[in-house]
Amino acid sequence: MKLASIDNKTRDGQLVVVNKELTKAVKVPEIAATMQFAIDNWKETEAKLQHVYENLNADKIPDTFDFSSARVLAPIPRAYHWADGSAYVTHVELVRKARNSELPESFWTDPLMYMGASDAFIGATDDIMIENEEWGIDFESEVAVITDDVPAGTNPEDALHHIKLITIINDVSLRNLIPNELSKQFGFYQSKPWTSFAPVVVTPDELDGDWTNGKLHLPLYSTLNGKCIGSPNAGIDMTFDFGQLIAHASKTRSLMAGTVIGSGTVANQGSLNGSSCLAEVRCLEIIKDGKASTPFMRFGDRIEIEMKDRNGNSIFGKINQVVKEYKK
Amino acid sequence: MKLASIDNKTRDGQLVVVNKELTKAVKVPEIAATMQFAIDNWKETEAKLQHVYENLNADKIPDTFDFSSARVLAPIPRAYHWADGSAYVTHVELVRKARNSELPESFWTDPLMYMGASDAFIGATDDIMIENEEWGIDFESEVAVITDDVPAGTNPEDALHHIKLITIINDVSLRNLIPNELSKQFGFYQSKPWTSFAPVVVTPDELDGDWTNGKLHLPLYSTLNGKCIGSPNAGIDMTFDFGQLIAHASKTRSLMAGTVIGSGTVANQGSLNGSSCLAEVRCLEIIKDGKASTPFMRFGDRIEIEMKDRNGNSIFGKINQVVKEYKK
Repeated sequence: MKLASIDNKTRDGQLVVVNKELTKAVKVPEIAATMQFAIDNWKETEAKLQHVYENLNADKIPDTFDFSSARVLAPIPRAYHWADGSAYVTHVELVRKARNSELPESFWTDPLMYMGASDAFIGATDDIMIENEEWGIDFESEVAVITDDVPAGTNPEDALHHIKLITIINDVSLRNLIPNELSKQFGFYQSKPWTSFAPVVVTPDELDGDWTNGKLHLPLYSTLNGKCIGSPNAGIDMTFDFGQLIAHASKTRSLMAGTVIGSGTVANQGSLNGSSCLAEVRCLEIIKDGKASTPFMRFGDRIEIEMKDRNGNSIFGKINQVVKEYKK
Repeated sequence: MKLASIDNKTRDGQLVVVNKELTKAVKVPEIAATMQFAIDNWKETEAKLQHVYENLNADKIPDTFDFSSARVLAPIPRAYHWADGSAYVTHVELVRKARNSELPESFWTDPLMYMGASDAFIGATDDIMIENEEWGIDFESEVAVITDDVPAGTNPEDALHHIKLITIINDVSLRNLIPNELSKQFGFYQSKPWTSFAPVVVTPDELDGDWTNGKLHLPLYSTLNGKCIGSPNAGIDMTFDFGQLIAHASKTRSLMAGTVIGSGTVANQGSLNGSSCLAEVRCLEIIKDGKASTPFMRFGDRIEIEMKDRNGNSIFGKINQVVKEYKK
């Protein structure tokens, strides 16, 4: 099934079930008013929501409305836990190569993961509000999953069963603030201002055979100002699958229902199908030409991120955002 | 006023107003069922809660019950944002000195801050469940504040007005997991499993003249297995006040109501009144003797953390926890 949160002037939005074609939706307050409530009580809500979804797809529900990505919030507008992995180690290797730095061997076996700000996820068509272009504005196209309650010490195989919902995200990054933050070793903070989500989240069964072993085997398209920057396949070169990422996150403590786990920038070795962020484009230029020629994003730039199924239909709807100047 | 969340078998607990002496409490579902609801709607809820608090202190409320720290959850059992500073730079300097490493000059002007896991804060008397003693279990006694909505780009002075609630916390740390995580530069993750809170949070006016300029000028007592480890004054040697910490956290994005900001381990230069974590005790031993003789915490160890007003009364109630073995 497919679920979204629409703007009803509350902090958590209104949960809706969306049809497979992303054209119609229906509110389900009798089952769950919010996405957090649904995932908090997934054992009770899942079957009921699925039932609504099937009836919606069969045109058996009268009170539907046209689903528009313009009205959506992030599917889970504020969450209690957001951990972003860096599962495509080939991307990290490339970034290191561009600055003549060796990749530690352990990076292939011990996942990189940072804790991100989960209190204000933004919607698929929300503007990306940034105060200063000089901060080096970049997008990062990723796959993300939402879990139910995960006990501490869960192993990678069991972790896969805790994945309830899947989507794609844009992990906005401020590249010029990153070196100082990483050098302090306490991780990203100011350099990761906003994370935006596709209009809908879907259950794993929606992805048919393209979701296997904790990986989503489809290309992820990133388009900047109408030009395709990349379409790497998210199922290729993902060093750590989502089961391994969740196991890493839950090694010393439990994860609460509604935890969002990200894949990190999707990247394929050699970048033959392009990149999922401008930083990677610039690293490739540095390796080839000795310097980067592609600038970071400017105010007015539009980023579109989308994943389509094998028939060319949008699975999650499109992230479609413009960077704008934030004035205090 | 003083507020707490008691266990009612829900994820967010039940908000209660607690009297000044921490002996009686009253539920206030007609004002706010949960702490998050209260802080989400602080402009409407604050005066109403304050009114209940005054009547409670004046013994004018019939439906009270005995307040027991055994029944409390963390005041905000799951929050949307938890950012921990390291505001007592003298502590960081000491840790660096013990490993013969220079403190970068910028650490005195640019706050260290990491994003922590906010989805499962634990209560004042909850056991600290850890799988492995070899991970190097330690407490960290800190001051923390809870904000309302903070716009992006808020300056330190304005930030002070967003501090609505204050408390003390235990930021449990797994010392032997930290070096590997910091070396990866993505910050703490597995090494910061649990954060526990004092039984109550209080509004700044409760602290009389001891809360000034974004600092809490009182000693914070940490007692391990009945032995006082330290009582440094939280108002001394705090390089960055809470206004500066909040301004740092909100530089590139807004903070949602209910954001928790921590001070980092409270420490005074020279550690004359002891320390707020075992890591600091061990660093002092290394500097003095060449090696650490104090072990980290073991299963069965009890940590008590408390702050008293000038009359010797407990302000927030006592954090009083035992470390126990977590079995999968």
